[in-house]
Amino acid sequence: MIEQDTIISLATKAGESAIGLIRISGNLCRKLSKDIFRVPSPTPRRSNLRNYVSVEGKLIDQVLFVFFDNGKSYTGEEIIEIAFHGNPLIADQILNDLLRRKCRLALPGEYTKRAFLNGKIDLSQAESVAQLISAKSEVELEIANNHLLGNLSKTLMEIQSKVLNLQARFEASIDFPEDEISDQHKDKILEIIDPIMLTVSNLLESENISRLLANGIKISLIGPPNVGKSSIFNKLLYDDRALVDREPGTTRDYLSKEIVINGFNIEIFDTAGIRNSNNNIEALGIQKSVDLIKDSKIILLILDSSLPYPTSFFEQIKDECKDRDTIIIQNKSDLTRSLNIEDFPNYFSTIQTSTLNQDCAEVIQKEIQSLLDQKYKNNHTNDIVVNKRQHNHLYKAYKSLKEVRQLVTETMNEEIILQELKLSLQEINSIIGIKDNEDMLTELFKNFCIGK
Amino acid sequence: MIEQDTIISLATKAGESAIGLIRISGNLCRKLSKDIFRVPSPTPRRSNLRNYVSVEGKLIDQVLFVFFDNGKSYTGEEIIEIAFHGNPLIADQILNDLLRRKCRLALPGEYTKRAFLNGKIDLSQAESVAQLISAKSEVELEIANNHLLGNLSKTLMEIQSKVLNLQARFEASIDFPEDEISDQHKDKILEIIDPIMLTVSNLLESENISRLLANGIKISLIGPPNVGKSSIFNKLLYDDRALVDREPGTTRDYLSKEIVINGFNIEIFDTAGIRNSNNNIEALGIQKSVDLIKDSKIILLILDSSLPYPTSFFEQIKDECKDRDTIIIQNKSDLTRSLNIEDFPNYFSTIQTSTLNQDCAEVIQKEIQSLLDQKYKNNHTNDIVVNKRQHNHLYKAYKSLKEVRQLVTETMNEEIILQELKLSLQEINSIIGIKDNEDMLTELFKNFCIGK
Repeated sequence: MIEQDTIISLATKAGESAIGLIRISGNLCRKLSKDIFRVPSPTPRRSNLRNYVSVEGKLIDQVLFVFFDNGKSYTGEEIIEIAFHGNPLIADQILNDLLRRKCRLALPGEYTKRAFLNGKIDLSQAESVAQLISAKSEVELEIANNHLLGNLSKTLMEIQSKVLNLQARFEASIDFPEDEISDQHKDKILEIIDPIMLTVSNLLESENISRLLANGIKISLIGPPNVGKSSIFNKLLYDDRALVDREPGTTRDYLSKEIVINGFNIEIFDTAGIRNSNNNIEALGIQKSVDLIKDSKIILLILDSSLPYPTSFFEQIKDECKDRDTIIIQNKSDLTRSLNIEDFPNYFSTIQTSTLNQDCAEVIQKEIQSLLDQKYKNNHTNDIVVNKRQHNHLYKAYKSLKEVRQLVTETMNEEIILQELKLSLQEINSIIGIKDNEDMLTELFKNFCIGK
Repeated sequence: MIEQDTIISLATKAGESAIGLIRISGNLCRKLSKDIFRVPSPTPRRSNLRNYVSVEGKLIDQVLFVFFDNGKSYTGEEIIEIAFHGNPLIADQILNDLLRRKCRLALPGEYTKRAFLNGKIDLSQAESVAQLISAKSEVELEIANNHLLGNLSKTLMEIQSKVLNLQARFEASIDFPEDEISDQHKDKILEIIDPIMLTVSNLLESENISRLLANGIKISLIGPPNVGKSSIFNKLLYDDRALVDREPGTTRDYLSKEIVINGFNIEIFDTAGIRNSNNNIEALGIQKSVDLIKDSKIILLILDSSLPYPTSFFEQIKDECKDRDTIIIQNKSDLTRSLNIEDFPNYFSTIQTSTLNQDCAEVIQKEIQSLLDQKYKNNHTNDIVVNKRQHNHLYKAYKSLKEVRQLVTETMNEEIILQELKLSLQEINSIIGIKDNEDMLTELFKNFCIGK
């Protein structure tokens, strides 16, 4: 363990509440236990009811304190947790008193950084702690939990060991330079390297999901005027309990609202306001729709199934929808059907409903769920989703592996191949974490919240 | 212990933070420990690192949980505290899972109510818990801590035992009805009852302080225009580190700002805005001053010591200042002194300073401190300060005791005196707490925060 300052900070959110928590980490803890609480040899992990008495001998609060021993705490150092009555004034008084007792305020992420430096967790686990705290949806929580359990680390270490295995093979051939790489040998190596590259490439792909989760998935309701877009929008937002209302939407040229479907954070858009301009309504509506499509991952195209639509309408939007997942909703299915949608490019599915139906919102929501499950759940890597930093390293590793593959097929010199293999290993190592890269660590931990 | 539902709630303030805490109280705790954490016999008070796994078998978070045993917890019931990664989504998921496991959400103050019902604390201590959490100044914290330690209860129990002692004396004389109350006996009784009444009356007086602390102490800077009021106001607010800036002030017809001096919450007022009207400025200024004086406990009267003031000026404000504590600040003390203040009614003190002096704010602040210490610290009852509810009961007790005293001097029938004594005892009991008064308890605990 590295000798360091004893750091302190409020670990709970500041404000009036039943309980607040202050965490102390460092080698002053045993002394603090003795000086503040008159407990010179605290039993590790035991919750003690004591008076917090300041340096000046003033009673600040009755608190519960717990001592965690060296090597058996979150940071790997001695830790004291103090649970006090949740008044910000009490928190200030305790923190000020601890400052006078030679502690210092922790920097953002400093507890987790120490946990990493003391070998309690690797870097990808450290990152998952910040993810756990800032996760905005269930899916993000699941991923963060999965990483905290070490599943990303495990996958990376498997890659690491396979690359090391390859490296050993090449080093063996260097020792016998007279042996050329035989075709058989070549095939064997490709047999090893191809699955590694597939795993890395799947991990790389997972970063899309992490970006989607961070920014939310945008879904737009589009369609000609008077097909019931706003009715459906309202149904989706208010009628169904499965859709949790998160935040009031902002009203700009359109209405938007954040909801959660199937654990995904979703922002749903409806073109509105265009109703009030009475000229060229149809054209305007379509332009708005086109703008929204550009920003969206999923399109709900609402059509009135009782009407035929002019080809020009489809022409205008079908190009835009091409790269998006589109669900066509044929509204007013209670009316006689005259709609022909065969002209529309590869849509995900089409459903017929009517806002008059009781289950209208439910039917649409189920369809969105099945689309999300099929397209946006990470089926390759079992809920392992890399973040941007990890993606950067993985991408470089992938490039090196690709280079290795090329060199192997071209029967190049083993030393050059080994060089490239080592580069890829370095990148994988950077994800798991190298402790002496202070700049990288500072960058990584500065976005943590204080107290973690 | 009373058999009750198992209650749950978030104990920390909701929001992103390193740690959040959920508290469970009730007889399901042992079962929950087994079902959720696979710990059928948790060691009391020991902090355990475990996965929180939902009813559906889903990992929600890695948490620290502590079990407190029946009779040895805050509420007196079995308690589990769960420390999770401070994400509101995780809190929701854990609370929802606990609801499915037959717990219910706690009402405001319900934990503390159970602590009271289970005899862990008396009612005045229960009230001090809410005070501890909502205290806005150090003085309030000190008082709440003092009450939580049981010092108010101790004082009340001393009163109780003295009244019981009196009661015993009267009951003894009823047993011997032929004995008249002798003069000697009378004197003895007055010797006992007078100190009780003095203690009760001091406690009653302390309620002023509790009201002052709750509402803050208003201090107004008044004086004729152009004497340097605003300079002094700004000096007091910004120049001195001892004055902690709390909240931005509201600007109405005057400027106001909340500051803390000597642990007291203080709202300081300056007449402003009147500078912009250029007619009858002096008259207007004085009218504003008079309005502010009505609301204030302390007046800082700023005068320009280089000027004589017309008698009419003093006449207009001295009546208003009569019942307030006034500190006269003779500003511009660097100029030749020509001010005569002998005409002003009993002021607390007068100081000479100049906003040009470095120590101007410090000098004024010290004077305010000494006034606060002398007038607003509770010297009678050692930091015991009763609240409104307690005051109501004490006031009735005092009235009964006064009646007793009157009856004794008039040599009245002992049975009537005993009646009155019992009334006073009932009131004292109500402060400490009678457990079967459900309405009173509901009223008292409804202002607590949830989770406490």
